[in-house]
Amino acid sequence: MIHFDDKAAFAAALTDLPMPDAAALEAAARRQAMLTKPAGSLGRLEEIALFMAGWQGRESPCAERIRAVIFAGNHGVAARGVSAFPTEVTAQMVTNFHNGGAAINALAGMCGAELSVVALDLERPTGDICVGPAMSEAECLNALNAGAAAVDPALDLLLLGEMGIANTTPAAALCAKAFGGTAELWVGRGTGVDTHGLTRKTEAVQLALALHGDVCGDAFETLRRLGGREIAAMAGAVLAARIVRVPVMLDGFIGCAAIAPLAKEAPAITGHCLAGHVSAEAGHGRLLAALGLVPLLNLHMRLGEGSGAAVAAQIVRSALAAHGGMATFAEATVAQAL
Amino acid sequence: MIHFDDKAAFAAALTDLPMPDAAALEAAARRQAMLTKPAGSLGRLEEIALFMAGWQGRESPCAERIRAVIFAGNHGVAARGVSAFPTEVTAQMVTNFHNGGAAINALAGMCGAELSVVALDLERPTGDICVGPAMSEAECLNALNAGAAAVDPALDLLLLGEMGIANTTPAAALCAKAFGGTAELWVGRGTGVDTHGLTRKTEAVQLALALHGDVCGDAFETLRRLGGREIAAMAGAVLAARIVRVPVMLDGFIGCAAIAPLAKEAPAITGHCLAGHVSAEAGHGRLLAALGLVPLLNLHMRLGEGSGAAVAAQIVRSALAAHGGMATFAEATVAQAL
Repeated sequence: MIHFDDKAAFAAALTDLPMPDAAALEAAARRQAMLTKPAGSLGRLEEIALFMAGWQGRESPCAERIRAVIFAGNHGVAARGVSAFPTEVTAQMVTNFHNGGAAINALAGMCGAELSVVALDLERPTGDICVGPAMSEAECLNALNAGAAAVDPALDLLLLGEMGIANTTPAAALCAKAFGGTAELWVGRGTGVDTHGLTRKTEAVQLALALHGDVCGDAFETLRRLGGREIAAMAGAVLAARIVRVPVMLDGFIGCAAIAPLAKEAPAITGHCLAGHVSAEAGHGRLLAALGLVPLLNLHMRLGEGSGAAVAAQIVRSALAAHGGMATFAEATVAQAL
Repeated sequence: MIHFDDKAAFAAALTDLPMPDAAALEAAARRQAMLTKPAGSLGRLEEIALFMAGWQGRESPCAERIRAVIFAGNHGVAARGVSAFPTEVTAQMVTNFHNGGAAINALAGMCGAELSVVALDLERPTGDICVGPAMSEAECLNALNAGAAAVDPALDLLLLGEMGIANTTPAAALCAKAFGGTAELWVGRGTGVDTHGLTRKTEAVQLALALHGDVCGDAFETLRRLGGREIAAMAGAVLAARIVRVPVMLDGFIGCAAIAPLAKEAPAITGHCLAGHVSAEAGHGRLLAALGLVPLLNLHMRLGEGSGAAVAAQIVRSALAAHGGMATFAEATVAQAL
C-alpha cells in the first residue's frame, strides 16, 4: 500500500515517475501485427492494448480486476451559491451509491468494476477558498493518502470518480492556476447552475486566485489551498497508481483538474492515464488538451461519479478481448496484404 | 419473418415506414426526469434510452438479445486491383469467424451479442460494376431477403457487419450516386490500399457511375447495379428491422453506404438506426452527415465485420442499465435542484 508520509514524500514521488515496461510494449506490438486484420484497423483499440501491456508489464494485459472509486467531499465555497444543488446532496448521493441507486452503480456493473465509495469528512466542509486555504497541511495529506489507499497494486485498471456539490469551482481555480487563462475561461455550468450562479462562480474563482495565486509554491500547496478533499484524494490516487504501475481511467472535469497541479510540475504524470471522455462542462476539452490527453468518448455527459470512466472502461475491455483473443494470420490461415 | 416477394414489395415497404411508439417515448422521458442525476447529465445515454424505448415500445427497454450479423460477399471489381488484400481472404475470414478467431468474435462477446455469419455465394463474385450490373434482379432480391431473414422480431438490437474484399469500391459508388460528389470525394484507402490502388479505385467508381448513373431508377435498381450481395443484404436487413421495429446499430462506411440508396428515397429510414462509430475511411464522416446520423464513437477503427457496432453496443447497454436501474429522487430521498 502506498502512503505519503509528508508533503515532501509526495513531491519526491512526483519527480520519480516509473515508466511503462518497454519489453512488454514491444511484445504486444509484435502480437498486434500478427492478428487477422489489416494493420492498424482497430485504431485506438490497438493503442489501448499497447498502453495496458506497457503498464501491466505483460504482452497480453487483462481488464478483469477493475475498481471504480468515488471520493466525496464538501466545500466551503458552496455557501456562495455556486451550485444548482444544495450541499446535503453530497451525503445523500453517498447513501444512494451505497444503496445501488446511482448512475455509477449501473455503469460500474456494466464494465465489471467493483465500486468503492470513500466519503471524506462530509460533515466538515473545506474552508472557503475565497477567504483562506481549503485545507490545513494535515487535512490535505490525509486526503492524498485516502486516495493512495484506494490503489491496490493487483488492479488491472482504476477508475476515478467524485461527488461534491460545488466542486467545479475549485476545479476551475486549479485549472486557471496550472494552465493560465481567466476564471471565465475555466468555469462552466456544472450540474446546471443558472446565469447568476455562473457569475457568482466566476467571482469566487477570481477571489480565490487573487488570494492564493502567488503563494501556491508546488502541487501539494496548490491542492491544499485551491482544491478539496475529494480532489486531493484523486491526485493522491493517480500518483500512487503510477508508483505501482496501475493504469488509471480519468472521468470528467474535476478528476482531470485534480491532476492539473501535478501535470504542471511533471507533465509525464498523465502517462499511465486514459481520458474516459470529454464532458459537456465548458472547460473540459481545453483541460484535456492541456494535459495531452485525447478522450475516448464524447457523449455530452456531465454527471461525474466516474460515470464517463465506467462507460469508457468497456472500450478497454473490448480492446483487450481483441488483443488477447484474436487468431494470428498463421493460426487462421488467412492471407496477408498483397 | 420478413420476406420481400419482389422488388415492388421492397419499394412499397420503403414508402410505409413505421414510427416509434410515442407513448413509450413519453413514459421513458418522464422516468429519465425522475432519476437521481441533474437533468440531461447523462447526455447521449439519455437519448439512447429514449430511442430504444420508442422502438421497443416500452418505458424500460432491454439490450439482452443482441445479434451481430456479418454478411460476406465477393466482388467482380476486385479483379481491377482496388484492394490491398487478395479475394481469397473473404472466404478465409468467414472460416475465421466460424472458428472464433476474428476481432468481431471477441467484440461481440464483450457486448453479449450472438454472432451470425451469412456467406453469400462467395464462389460467384458479383459482376464487375465497371462493365455491367453487379447482380441480376433475382440475385439482388435473394441478397435483400438474406438480410431480411437475419432479422428476428424478438431481438432487442441488431448489429450489422460485413466482409467482402473490394467492397469499399461499390460503397463509394453508392454514396456518389445517392448524395452526389465526385468519385474522389467518396473513395478511401479501405483496408490499406496504396496510392496506385487508390487511383484504380477512383477510376473504377468513375466507370461504374458513367455506366449506371443515369439508369438507377430506384433503391433496388441502384443496389442491383452498383452494390453487392453483402451490401444488398444489409439494406434488406435495415428495412426488415424497421418493419418489425427492431433498432439497428450500423457499423462503418460500407454498412452506411448500403442504406444510402434507401435514404435517398426515404430519408426517415435511418430513424431506427444508431451509427456505432465514424471510421477512418475517408468518406464515412461525410456519409454519416448525409444520413443525418451522429456516431457514438470515433476510435479511428476501419475494420468492418461490425466491429465498431459491437463496441458501441456496450454504450447502449450502459444507457439502458442506467435508465432501468437507477433510483428516482423520491426513492433515494435525494434533494433536487435549488
